[in-house]
Amino acid sequence: MITLHHLVQSRSNRIAWLLETLNLPYEIKVYQRTTEYGAPESLKAIHPLGKSPVITDGELTIAESGAIIEYLIETYDIEHKLKPTDTTALLDYRYWLHFAEGSLMPLLVMRLVLTKSLDRPMPFFAKPIIRKYSQGLNHLFIGTRITPQLQLIDDHLSRQTWFAGDTLSGADFQMVLSLQLAKMRCNLTPFTHIQRYLDQVESLEPYTRALNKLS
Amino acid sequence: MITLHHLVQSRSNRIAWLLETLNLPYEIKVYQRTTEYGAPESLKAIHPLGKSPVITDGELTIAESGAIIEYLIETYDIEHKLKPTDTTALLDYRYWLHFAEGSLMPLLVMRLVLTKSLDRPMPFFAKPIIRKYSQGLNHLFIGTRITPQLQLIDDHLSRQTWFAGDTLSGADFQMVLSLQLAKMRCNLTPFTHIQRYLDQVESLEPYTRALNKLS
Repeated sequence: MITLHHLVQSRSNRIAWLLETLNLPYEIKVYQRTTEYGAPESLKAIHPLGKSPVITDGELTIAESGAIIEYLIETYDIEHKLKPTDTTALLDYRYWLHFAEGSLMPLLVMRLVLTKSLDRPMPFFAKPIIRKYSQGLNHLFIGTRITPQLQLIDDHLSRQTWFAGDTLSGADFQMVLSLQLAKMRCNLTPFTHIQRYLDQVESLEPYTRALNKLS
Repeated sequence: MITLHHLVQSRSNRIAWLLETLNLPYEIKVYQRTTEYGAPESLKAIHPLGKSPVITDGELTIAESGAIIEYLIETYDIEHKLKPTDTTALLDYRYWLHFAEGSLMPLLVMRLVLTKSLDRPMPFFAKPIIRKYSQGLNHLFIGTRITPQLQLIDDHLSRQTWFAGDTLSGADFQMVLSLQLAKMRCNLTPFTHIQRYLDQVESLEPYTRALNKLS
């Protein structure tokens, strides 16, 4: 039996969606965050970094979203529906599977950290200075990099239904969460194809089933 | 013919090392950074994000280090030396291939950005406040996460020679650069297995050949 170890407010929805799509039996084990927004010791007992998602499948423990997606598809996608074989689609598959956490997510997480850090207690005279510095970094380092990335994604999705062609693949499970976070942290108004894509995912029956189980 | 598009001070050494290891003919095209440390238009003409490494192989353009490594191994590693088939080694292979850019690198890049941002011109009264804020973030958000990651890597390398078992694999090409950056930005003194690993890579003939070609 597969167990999805789910730390609340983490990146598990993509894995739950994949498990539902593959129609696999699994159980969800929920972990609450510590007061410092970290992982509890019980999750660190499963994987030393306490990061989520993590799955266990019998004796195996598997972490890193991209690695979990690849493992589940290579092990359980017996009809070979979720990994393309066509050259172009396979290139897209690999690219977006790495892009999500390697390029887009780091910028979104850094934006989140910079924004959240302003809520921490600090002397009144420091606040405007730190706010200006944080906004500067957010614009100079993050904004200038994130807009071209969103444009690239939008252009890509203007040409095809899913990330690796016209059928759903592992790349979609990996990308959806980064785009949902982008929707919370960036202005997606100009990126109509990304919006269409998110609506398309969120209306899928296995996706809503997964979300219901996690909530 | 494969071309490695190399932006100076980017993540190309891992790909050059892989190309040398696979004994493939390739050419290197060097791109200088702009005054704002960005990519020049000539690199953006190859790939819209102007990120490096990027390779072109005939008509194909491939970006994202992990995707390039997978493409090169699946296409040209005809003796199947660099991708394990054993279950445990394959799990490690996938894990570290995603971990490098998905977990370790974002923290190192954020540390670099926070450190470099202090060099930007700012009013004298703001400097100590911003320095304290930046150091706080560096400790609270980055330090507390990076040490367990380095410990995990060190423990892993205490048990085996390479990232995915006792022979070199694609995971090593992906991991080495993050560890070299960690060496520059973190105290690696307690992590003797990481140090041993870096020495081991840097003494390989294909690795030094790659480095000489890039310099």
